[in-house]
Amino acid sequence: MDSTAGSTSAAEQAAMRRALALAATPGVPMVADTRRVGCVLLDAEGRTVAEGHHRGPGTPHAEAAALARAGEAARGATAVVTLEPCHHTGRTGPCTEALVAAGVRRVVFAETDANPVAAGGRARLEAAGIEVEAGLLVDEAAALAAVYRRAQQQQRPYVTWKLAATLDGRSAAADGTSRWISGRASRRDAHRLRAACDTMLVGTGTVLEDDPRLTVRDEQDRPAPVQPLRAVMGLRDLPVGARVLDDEADTVHLRTRDPRSALAELWVRDRQRVLLEGGPTLAAAFLADGLVDEIVCYVAPVLLGAGRAAVGDLGIPTISRALRPRVTDVTVLPGLDGEQPDVRLTLDPRET
Amino acid sequence: MDSTAGSTSAAEQAAMRRALALAATPGVPMVADTRRVGCVLLDAEGRTVAEGHHRGPGTPHAEAAALARAGEAARGATAVVTLEPCHHTGRTGPCTEALVAAGVRRVVFAETDANPVAAGGRARLEAAGIEVEAGLLVDEAAALAAVYRRAQQQQRPYVTWKLAATLDGRSAAADGTSRWISGRASRRDAHRLRAACDTMLVGTGTVLEDDPRLTVRDEQDRPAPVQPLRAVMGLRDLPVGARVLDDEADTVHLRTRDPRSALAELWVRDRQRVLLEGGPTLAAAFLADGLVDEIVCYVAPVLLGAGRAAVGDLGIPTISRALRPRVTDVTVLPGLDGEQPDVRLTLDPRET
Ligand SMILES: NC(=O)c1ccc[n+]([C@@H]2O[C@H](COP(=O)([O-])OP(=O)(O)OC[C@H]3O[C@@H](n4cnc5c(N)ncnc54)[C@H](OP(=O)(O)O)[C@@H]3O)[C@@H](O)[C@H]2O)c1
Ligand SMILES: NC(=O)c1ccc[n+]([C@@H]2O[C@H](COP(=O)([O-])OP(=O)(O)OC[C@H]3O[C@@H](n4cnc5c(N)ncnc54)[C@H](OP(=O)(O)O)[C@@H]3O)[C@@H](O)[C@H]2O)c1
Repeated sequence: MDSTAGSTSAAEQAAMRRALALAATPGVPMVADTRRVGCVLLDAEGRTVAEGHHRGPGTPHAEAAALARAGEAARGATAVVTLEPCHHTGRTGPCTEALVAAGVRRVVFAETDANPVAAGGRARLEAAGIEVEAGLLVDEAAALAAVYRRAQQQQRPYVTWKLAATLDGRSAAADGTSRWISGRASRRDAHRLRAACDTMLVGTGTVLEDDPRLTVRDEQDRPAPVQPLRAVMGLRDLPVGARVLDDEADTVHLRTRDPRSALAELWVRDRQRVLLEGGPTLAAAFLADGLVDEIVCYVAPVLLGAGRAAVGDLGIPTISRALRPRVTDVTVLPGLDGEQPDVRLTLDPRET
Repeated sequence: MDSTAGSTSAAEQAAMRRALALAATPGVPMVADTRRVGCVLLDAEGRTVAEGHHRGPGTPHAEAAALARAGEAARGATAVVTLEPCHHTGRTGPCTEALVAAGVRRVVFAETDANPVAAGGRARLEAAGIEVEAGLLVDEAAALAAVYRRAQQQQRPYVTWKLAATLDGRSAAADGTSRWISGRASRRDAHRLRAACDTMLVGTGTVLEDDPRLTVRDEQDRPAPVQPLRAVMGLRDLPVGARVLDDEADTVHLRTRDPRSALAELWVRDRQRVLLEGGPTLAAAFLADGLVDEIVCYVAPVLLGAGRAAVGDLGIPTISRALRPRVTDVTVLPGLDGEQPDVRLTLDPRET
């Protein structure tokens, strides 16, 4: 189904993006086939009435959480949900009945629920006279679901390596400066990516050299209410006063150089989606060990001619042994405020 | 005007591409405002009857050259021309009259002739009952004209630097191998670019290490009938038996390390459009001297982690001094035969 399904409003499309972000809220423990679901309730004018997301086994489903918050305001509302509302009585009762009882007028969902036990939601809603629209942003919803499914299968967090590089593959100039290589549009995009992850991982080298904050902030530089965990990997001590040690978010120092055991430690802490932010040494170690599930590369139309390489030595001696990840997306990010555009490539290194 | 003007056939569009390639044929001496023009005559079935291009001052215009070759076959034909046919009696007589006299039925051209002396061609053709369509591939035609105008203004060849690089900015692996970094689609595209240039320039380093042929070849690896000049720059001798010294094309060894004097030497030889094919050392020298007019960069979704950098040292110490060329085009080149796509960026380093 097309993600720009004609019969949804701009407000519903924006609400679905928000519902997807809610579905990715960090901190949901993963048990068996727990689904990440987000829900936004809109009134007749397209204004948000309430939001909800599923917080793990035994807690209310996203729809129920949003309805509880909305109370009477749910009457006549539109529910925008990332997954077809379930129609079975599990630990929490069917969402279909809750939506009907609350007097919701219209339901827009992304993915159809393939689980035979929970299926039938759409039919039940329609039988109760509720207008139903399916398939809005279904590709994005499916990609999000695949991330958690993959984590569950591998029993370790899903790892996205994010990098920003010049045309000549530099991630910092000769003197170590790297702000900024890519433009504002890319940085904004990267913050959305950060917000969808529950952990940000860097090596001690990056902390010692750049002293990054590693927090999720909005356009006005305000911190997001829920922050991913900050993880620093490597044997060296972190300097007292390093920004990653402030109280804007939790931080863990993983005193190891073994990527696999670092991921195991994060998995035990219910971490399912790690954004590997570099530097080049750490990224090379994860790539070489086959522990990168996705690469998001912002290529900036910039030349430096010298400086730090975007990725460290991968032990590749000759061109026939080059890493050739599968390209899953290429997007031009138009420059903001007169800046140049960047190109974002999304790659899957597991399929070559 | 839109380059996919609705009222032209696929055959006419293909013919205009061919006419643009003809317009760029190497070897036309440049005097004052000589225009590069190409012309293809098509019969009623869209088959090519004859081709022509302008070969410089005092020689027939493109249309006249094609008409002369076609003879009687021009009757009822469609003339596809990169520039509006001229309507003034210069050294060669107005093309409009030649087209009318030959019995051409329809004229499709790209650019309107802005020269007030030559203008009025369209009106004259229409008055004679010839069908006229203007604006097909006008952007491409204008870009081509701008190249030669720029060369004329600068009194040196227009320089396009072409490079192929991995995501991490490598143009060869650790052992020097670089075949192939980018895919077949990019290599095919690069051959088209080569065919539009009259000179291919590399440093002695590339000849010594790669022993390239530096010829224009088609998909079946057959050499094109007209080959650009091969120019090698640097002080070292070229090895006897180097492929650039074979008789597939002319070659000149420019025994200098000064980019400006190398270009002056090429200008004297009527060279107007140089494709700088590398290597990294020579490219850096041209960039640092501000002698690159255009960059065409094929970014391949490949990681090497080591190997030769795509560009040599530019003397840039810190990020604020980075070279930020203006992006004029970003095109995804879909992979052929199951290969991955590459991204081609075209940049203008003169405007930052
Ligand atoms: N443009 C970008 O996208 C970007 C992003 C991040 C960083 N950077 C740049 O990267 C630079 C820092 O580079 P870096 O390579 O030193 O940073 P790094 O990769 O963050 O840190 C490297 C350090 O991590 C530790 N480590 C942990 N696991 C390791 C393993 N498996 N193998 C080797 N070392 C391991 C080692 O330190 P111990 O001795 O402590 O174990 C090592 O020295 C900065 O200049 C920064 O600007 C750029
Ligand atoms: N992927 C690509 O797009 C691509 C394209 C081309 C080459 N390459 C790779 O590039 C490598 C060759 O690198 P390279 O840098 O040695 O090649 P290069 O740039 O072709 O040649 C460098 C040599 O050119 C001479 N030269 C001329 N003008 C110069 C100047 N202004 N400054 C400095 N030197 C000047 C010098 O030799 P003298 O001592 O003789 O003066 C210098 O050593 C090969 O491995 C090849 O695979 C890649």
